[in-house]
Amino acid sequence: RLDAIFEPLHAADIADLLEQIDARDRRALLALWKGGMDGEILSELDDNLREEIIQSLAPTELAQAVRELESDDVVDLVEYLDEDQQAAVLDALAAIDRIAVEKALAYPEESAGRLMQVEVVRAPEHWTVGEAIDFLRRSETLPDQFYHVMLVDPRMKPVGYVQIGRLLSKSRATPLRDITEESFRTFHVEDDEGAVAYAFNQYHLISAPVVDDDDRLVGVITIDDAMNVLDEEHEEDILRLAGVGGESELSDSVRETTRQRLPWLAVNLGTAIIASLVISIFEETIAGLVALAVLMPIVASMGGNAGTQSLTVAVRAIATRDLTTSNVWRVIRREVAVGLINGLAFAVVMGIVGVVWFGSPLLGGVIAVSMVINLVVAGLSGVVVPVVLDRFGVDPALASGTFVTTVTDVVGFFAFLGLASVILL
Amino acid sequence: RLDAIFEPLHAADIADLLEQIDARDRRALLALWKGGMDGEILSELDDNLREEIIQSLAPTELAQAVRELESDDVVDLVEYLDEDQQAAVLDALAAIDRIAVEKALAYPEESAGRLMQVEVVRAPEHWTVGEAIDFLRRSETLPDQFYHVMLVDPRMKPVGYVQIGRLLSKSRATPLRDITEESFRTFHVEDDEGAVAYAFNQYHLISAPVVDDDDRLVGVITIDDAMNVLDEEHEEDILRLAGVGGESELSDSVRETTRQRLPWLAVNLGTAIIASLVISIFEETIAGLVALAVLMPIVASMGGNAGTQSLTVAVRAIATRDLTTSNVWRVIRREVAVGLINGLAFAVVMGIVGVVWFGSPLLGGVIAVSMVINLVVAGLSGVVVPVVLDRFGVDPALASGTFVTTVTDVVGFFAFLGLASVILL
Ligand SMILES: [Mg+2]
Ligand SMILES: [Mg+2]
Ligand SMILES: [Mg+2]
Ligand SMILES: [Mg+2]
Ligand SMILES: [Mg+2]
Ligand SMILES: [Mg+2]
Ligand SMILES: [Mg+2]
Ligand SMILES: [Mg+2]
Ligand SMILES: [Mg+2]
Ligand SMILES: [Mg+2]
Ligand SMILES: [Mg+2]
Ligand SMILES: [Mg+2]
Ligand SMILES: [Mg+2]
Repeated sequence: RLDAIFEPLHAADIADLLEQIDARDRRALLALWKGGMDGEILSELDDNLREEIIQSLAPTELAQAVRELESDDVVDLVEYLDEDQQAAVLDALAAIDRIAVEKALAYPEESAGRLMQVEVVRAPEHWTVGEAIDFLRRSETLPDQFYHVMLVDPRMKPVGYVQIGRLLSKSRATPLRDITEESFRTFHVEDDEGAVAYAFNQYHLISAPVVDDDDRLVGVITIDDAMNVLDEEHEEDILRLAGVGGESELSDSVRETTRQRLPWLAVNLGTAIIASLVISIFEETIAGLVALAVLMPIVASMGGNAGTQSLTVAVRAIATRDLTTSNVWRVIRREVAVGLINGLAFAVVMGIVGVVWFGSPLLGGVIAVSMVINLVVAGLSGVVVPVVLDRFGVDPALASGTFVTTVTDVVGFFAFLGLASVILL
Repeated sequence: RLDAIFEPLHAADIADLLEQIDARDRRALLALWKGGMDGEILSELDDNLREEIIQSLAPTELAQAVRELESDDVVDLVEYLDEDQQAAVLDALAAIDRIAVEKALAYPEESAGRLMQVEVVRAPEHWTVGEAIDFLRRSETLPDQFYHVMLVDPRMKPVGYVQIGRLLSKSRATPLRDITEESFRTFHVEDDEGAVAYAFNQYHLISAPVVDDDDRLVGVITIDDAMNVLDEEHEEDILRLAGVGGESELSDSVRETTRQRLPWLAVNLGTAIIASLVISIFEETIAGLVALAVLMPIVASMGGNAGTQSLTVAVRAIATRDLTTSNVWRVIRREVAVGLINGLAFAVVMGIVGVVWFGSPLLGGVIAVSMVINLVVAGLSGVVVPVVLDRFGVDPALASGTFVTTVTDVVGFFAFLGLASVILL
């Protein structure tokens, strides 16, 4: 009966379903659904659940589950398993597949070498369409998925590729090298997977060859896997910008979630205390005019928001390679100009609020001036901080927010309370 | 000489280069580089630059530039141009292409109908591999890009598809319907492009047929375009979460950028004033103990950060369809539990800070209790706000941040100052 329900579902949907129910229901379901688990479902599961479920499988079940997968999917499945489980899965593979997977695992994490499949369709560069078609029709085993024939020179260096559709629309005598695609791009096994995903999206690639240190073709990356990486990189950025580790999953436990979030809140507590120290400098000023305590969070909050706007645009533009040395000055000028204009607009508004609410034009003036200062600083630091972090090799998504909001808090409180202490008292 | 520099570059890189230099350099460059502009580069440009550059092209140049594009790329190129420019581009097309593009433009914005190309390779479902190969080899014009042959029934309804690679590896007598792919999925012309991109990523699709109201095959979407949409949707979410309209480009002018950012800052000013009103209720309390003014931003800031963590995870999980009715309660329970644990941890820290810094155990107690309250509220509202917004059809990425930080500011100030007024004075 369970088979009847799961049969029409895609492996990705079954994995999502297993992730969404709670641990007890999951164990009960899996106990009932003996033997249904296959490699595709394991591939789609979050890391934490995958370990849990692999643990519960008998070695023969596991062997059966992973044998039908392509090499890149096996790599993706096992790369973050603990050693025992990894060994168990590798043992379940045929010797030839195991060697391919072990070779891939020897490449760095998140590299092109781990993303590629070793199943490639190659042809010598001097072949004609007819030779390629005959070769393909004679081949015993072709990869499950392939969209291009890779042309290689005698030393196995990829020199171009031909869309399979093109083979079918050209005469048999056409040389393959006359119908290669312009979009051809080669990756090295150690290239970062994020850079690979960027290139697929930027250049509309469908598949791309991967070479080793000797420029020999060792595998091919297909766009579906690149799309997955693009999605993961985005997820990582969005979570990092919010101060959540990039690894968070909805199926994580309370303990795991606390472990991810607490360090960032601790950092934030540190910066909040720095802001408090700034305020404490002006305790006497505040004691003299409590309205300052009422209004001061407004200046800091506006600066924090404006800074977040600028830094998010900058972090994103660094990720998409749109922010480069050639336009960084233009972007800084733009952000400062926008900060100035917005600052002036809200200065007028807050000046009026100051007068109407507290009946004090001087107080209105102080809040107005500090608003302008803080929004300009927000625009400036919103670009400069991520650019500098990136220059130093720190992921700007990870740390920019903390730096920028610390700057805007400190500047906001200091400008507002400092001006007030000079002008109002 | 310019041709020699640009020739080896991909259209996407030329577009990026034009976006990165400033307006004056761009005009000078384009004046020198007469006739180099082609449709691919226009396709890759940001909307604002595209309008600027199309304006500067003579009608014959424009005609030449767009004629070589596939239907989906023309649609993408013209859909947001103003009417005059759109008409100019359409006039430049051959009649048959113009009709296809006009039909696509009749579908809603951001729909599958606008994303698909009308160039499709179809075959009757009863054909064999041999018949399909012969048909393809006889065809005068095949699409530039195709990876599957779509099988259709006599009423033109798509019923399955066959990878072209598969055609080459099976005997000529094999019926096509025996070698179709499991991943087959059909979209309707009015399906949202975001849902299409989600499905491509979730089900590892490479291409997918699009049908009209009568279930007839009218086009095909390929993964490269779906990947682009996925990237845009992420960009939109990340920018919306930061309070920047989803349309922001690095090449936007100061005026345009100000126009995007000011409304969100205005909303933030409104919420900051609400928080100030809460503080103003306790003016007398603060006047009695200025240390409260020093410490109160800490409670609000920690709540804001914890709330942002929760809401970002929730917004992202709604976008990836991982947060559903079946697990929303589990996630709410988890976030509240994490808020409670983190709250208790930081309550201890701040209690100690209160005692050490201000020498007052009672003050330490007040800040500790209000920290726990605010972090629990942050966890709760971080999930509930985006889920409720989504239920009401509002994009949770767009508005959750404002709501949640308003809640944590108000609760933070109210709990801290309220407790202080009761306990300390
Ligand atoms: Mg999942
Ligand atoms: Mg991986
Ligand atoms: Mg793959
Ligand atoms: Mg990465
Ligand atoms: Mg990243
Ligand atoms: Mg780009
Ligand atoms: Mg661009
Ligand atoms: Mg396109
Ligand atoms: Mg579009
Ligand atoms: Mg296309
Ligand atoms: Mg959209
Ligand atoms: Mg969206
Ligand atoms: Mg999913």
